[in-house]
Amino acid sequence: MPNVGKSQSTADRRQHFVELAQGIFPSEHITVEHDELRVLGTDWTRNFEVSPLAAVFPTSIDQVAELVQMANVHHFPLVPSGGRTGLSGGCVATSDEIVVSFDRMNRILHFDPVDRLVHCQAGVVTAQLQQFAAEHGLTYPVDFSSSGSSQIGGNIATNAGGIRVIRHGMTRDWVAGMKVVTGKGDVLEFNRGLVKNATGYDLRHLFIGSEGTLGFIVEAEMQLGTAPSPQRVMVLGVGKLADLLSILQRFKQTVNLSAFEFFSDLAMSKVLQHSTLRRPLRETTEYYALIEYDEDQSELATQAFSDCLDQGWVVDGVLSQSNSQTDDLWRLRDGITESIAGYVPYKNDVSVRISQVPEFLDDIDGLVKEHYPDLEVCWFGHIGDGNLHLNILKPPELDINEFQERCRAINPLLFKQIQRRGGSISAEHGVGLLKRDYLEFSRETSEIDAMREIKHVFDPNGIMNPGKLLLPQ
Amino acid sequence: MPNVGKSQSTADRRQHFVELAQGIFPSEHITVEHDELRVLGTDWTRNFEVSPLAAVFPTSIDQVAELVQMANVHHFPLVPSGGRTGLSGGCVATSDEIVVSFDRMNRILHFDPVDRLVHCQAGVVTAQLQQFAAEHGLTYPVDFSSSGSSQIGGNIATNAGGIRVIRHGMTRDWVAGMKVVTGKGDVLEFNRGLVKNATGYDLRHLFIGSEGTLGFIVEAEMQLGTAPSPQRVMVLGVGKLADLLSILQRFKQTVNLSAFEFFSDLAMSKVLQHSTLRRPLRETTEYYALIEYDEDQSELATQAFSDCLDQGWVVDGVLSQSNSQTDDLWRLRDGITESIAGYVPYKNDVSVRISQVPEFLDDIDGLVKEHYPDLEVCWFGHIGDGNLHLNILKPPELDINEFQERCRAINPLLFKQIQRRGGSISAEHGVGLLKRDYLEFSRETSEIDAMREIKHVFDPNGIMNPGKLLLPQ
Repeated sequence: MPNVGKSQSTADRRQHFVELAQGIFPSEHITVEHDELRVLGTDWTRNFEVSPLAAVFPTSIDQVAELVQMANVHHFPLVPSGGRTGLSGGCVATSDEIVVSFDRMNRILHFDPVDRLVHCQAGVVTAQLQQFAAEHGLTYPVDFSSSGSSQIGGNIATNAGGIRVIRHGMTRDWVAGMKVVTGKGDVLEFNRGLVKNATGYDLRHLFIGSEGTLGFIVEAEMQLGTAPSPQRVMVLGVGKLADLLSILQRFKQTVNLSAFEFFSDLAMSKVLQHSTLRRPLRETTEYYALIEYDEDQSELATQAFSDCLDQGWVVDGVLSQSNSQTDDLWRLRDGITESIAGYVPYKNDVSVRISQVPEFLDDIDGLVKEHYPDLEVCWFGHIGDGNLHLNILKPPELDINEFQERCRAINPLLFKQIQRRGGSISAEHGVGLLKRDYLEFSRETSEIDAMREIKHVFDPNGIMNPGKLLLPQ
Repeated sequence: MPNVGKSQSTADRRQHFVELAQGIFPSEHITVEHDELRVLGTDWTRNFEVSPLAAVFPTSIDQVAELVQMANVHHFPLVPSGGRTGLSGGCVATSDEIVVSFDRMNRILHFDPVDRLVHCQAGVVTAQLQQFAAEHGLTYPVDFSSSGSSQIGGNIATNAGGIRVIRHGMTRDWVAGMKVVTGKGDVLEFNRGLVKNATGYDLRHLFIGSEGTLGFIVEAEMQLGTAPSPQRVMVLGVGKLADLLSILQRFKQTVNLSAFEFFSDLAMSKVLQHSTLRRPLRETTEYYALIEYDEDQSELATQAFSDCLDQGWVVDGVLSQSNSQTDDLWRLRDGITESIAGYVPYKNDVSVRISQVPEFLDDIDGLVKEHYPDLEVCWFGHIGDGNLHLNILKPPELDINEFQERCRAINPLLFKQIQRRGGSISAEHGVGLLKRDYLEFSRETSEIDAMREIKHVFDPNGIMNPGKLLLPQ
């Protein structure tokens, strides 16, 4: 008789899983190969230990449901894996989990032009959906720098936002229906593409942003919108943080904005260093605003710009006169993440109410200057959403672990400032592993308790992405 | 010693409640007066037995929390009561409940013009918020015929929709923050007015549309929008149901619609009988579409109309040339509910995907003609949202009970058609008491089980609006 009481070695457990999984998946859709697992079990954070037991590539909802049922019986923790572009460790497998990749569930199943709904498998890539929409004369307007890799399932699981939220909202606003496999193994379908449906708790919205802790998102009905009218872009030079908000206010009065982004001169300098782009303005200012709007509102936008000049909020500005100029101006903003990647930046993605942005920026700037007078701090973000990305850059000579330790030390101070202002410690990157231990700065204890109980409803054995979002108990 | 084992009479229980409640509320904010209770304990359905034990009028969140704590200890079921304009019995007190009216928590507490957020107590009336927005050059665009009485708390609890959902969405889309008192008595604050906040399950969205079964919504941060540009209205005569959808499609291609409503000739005839309005078109057609759009798109709208004429989808049309004409055309649609009220209509508020509307209308029309060849059936609704209001009118000579029994008999047949099409048995009126026994036609058993468990998380003793939405167990 086997000694069932003895704890299994990783190798034994791995073999046990493979034997069971072969009843569900063809062998070529299961992998235990070390190099593959290291890729499949991580995301863009790169600073967590990666150690999955195995990975599987389901091709059907039935396979996902069977896997979950098996995992419940045999206590295998499961980690959903989409495009792996997350920035909070939400899909990182750190402790012998099974990675469930949606790379092979990447088909668009149906499109209804009347409803403007696209029925997608979870592994459809954002850019694939955007392209599909464009081919039908429509748009999927949720957009971010990871659109080429991120998957719809992951976008929904994290309620991804990005650069045009001020106009088009978050992923949440574009999900008209959803199929999930809960942590119990139930296959549930939510809302089925309806515009109006007042039949009790909207579980669709509960799963949106749940970071794979309640179940797997396996299919979605994504809403498309009317194709965008031609857009124009302005970049403005701004001397004072507080003026950014006045500029936003003035433009919002008369112009239908598609984006209102900001970046610091340091952020732009990094982009310029890493590209053939040139400074857009003669004068150097400490901050820049990038404003996108409908081309047919150019006159109103020019008037707003002129008013901002008169008020002294804006020092200088440039307006795109062609599509290629529009692209170049956007590259000043879009290029930031890539241009600072080599500095292994310590990132924080936070938000406050829009009205609080200038004071909050001042506070944090002071905090950072006090604690890191020797480090470069690179600011950019979505001012129109109250969403700021703070990036502390590692000097080449500083050891990575020492650098991260120093950066982490500031977290409680930063998060206390956010708490005091009722802000969010994670605006759009999610909680995952990175912010998990700080959740109480943005959510009350009784809320976290309720979240834990809700998780238990859908995942009573705690097999779904354990340790993410909520501290293990 | 009192005999605690003996079940108390209603009078005893009422007295017991009043004694306890006096520790929380001043006497003038508690009532047990029969006529007042009959009003406070009902909604616009009027066909449920109304029998509350008492009613209270809290003026603060603390009072609500204390009441909930007391109700948990002494087992008093609580029913939230807003503007009482519901159409599903969601706030009807049928069995010795305590009605909790928000009539005295009706203040706007704060407005931030930068964030465009209005901090409201739950009892603020919809029209009051709309008026407030207009005074600040902004808009609160969620609108329905009950705006003069319905309260923000109730709107959120039912995720109210209305006539401009095609442009502006549901109440859900305008709630940036919320304070609730859960069924446990915890005071929780959700989202705090943030645009981006990725810190776990969005409990705000769980409470929206929960019909008072999880807790009380006591305050909300409501988002305002840019003031609307001037609007124009067209009314079109349409011969065939299927053509309504073609017309919608054609207009959506080029025109930014604010409303796309439809009504049958019978519905319009009732309005004309009860008003001084005249027929808008020379020709009588079986259906009419009312289309609202931005005035500056008039040329595009006229072109779309002309295309629809050419296709033979539209027989005739009228275009508003002034604001008073716009109002008159809207009265043809807005006046329906009032004009048929005297017929004690049996209402059903249902939805399917937009693309399924014509076939679904045909199915239901056939069903109704087969079962009620002798009854008048009045159709109207929000075609642009796939939302249809079916009203069966009572002939004067027919007994009300017999009439309702006959109408109810068709429910399972109607709901099976809806289920087959993946539609909703309640598009915007909610479930309450009226649709509770039919919930399984729109939600799967495992979903209903999950809803029950979620309710238990926030309301473990089942004191919050018991018997509404979910069947008692």
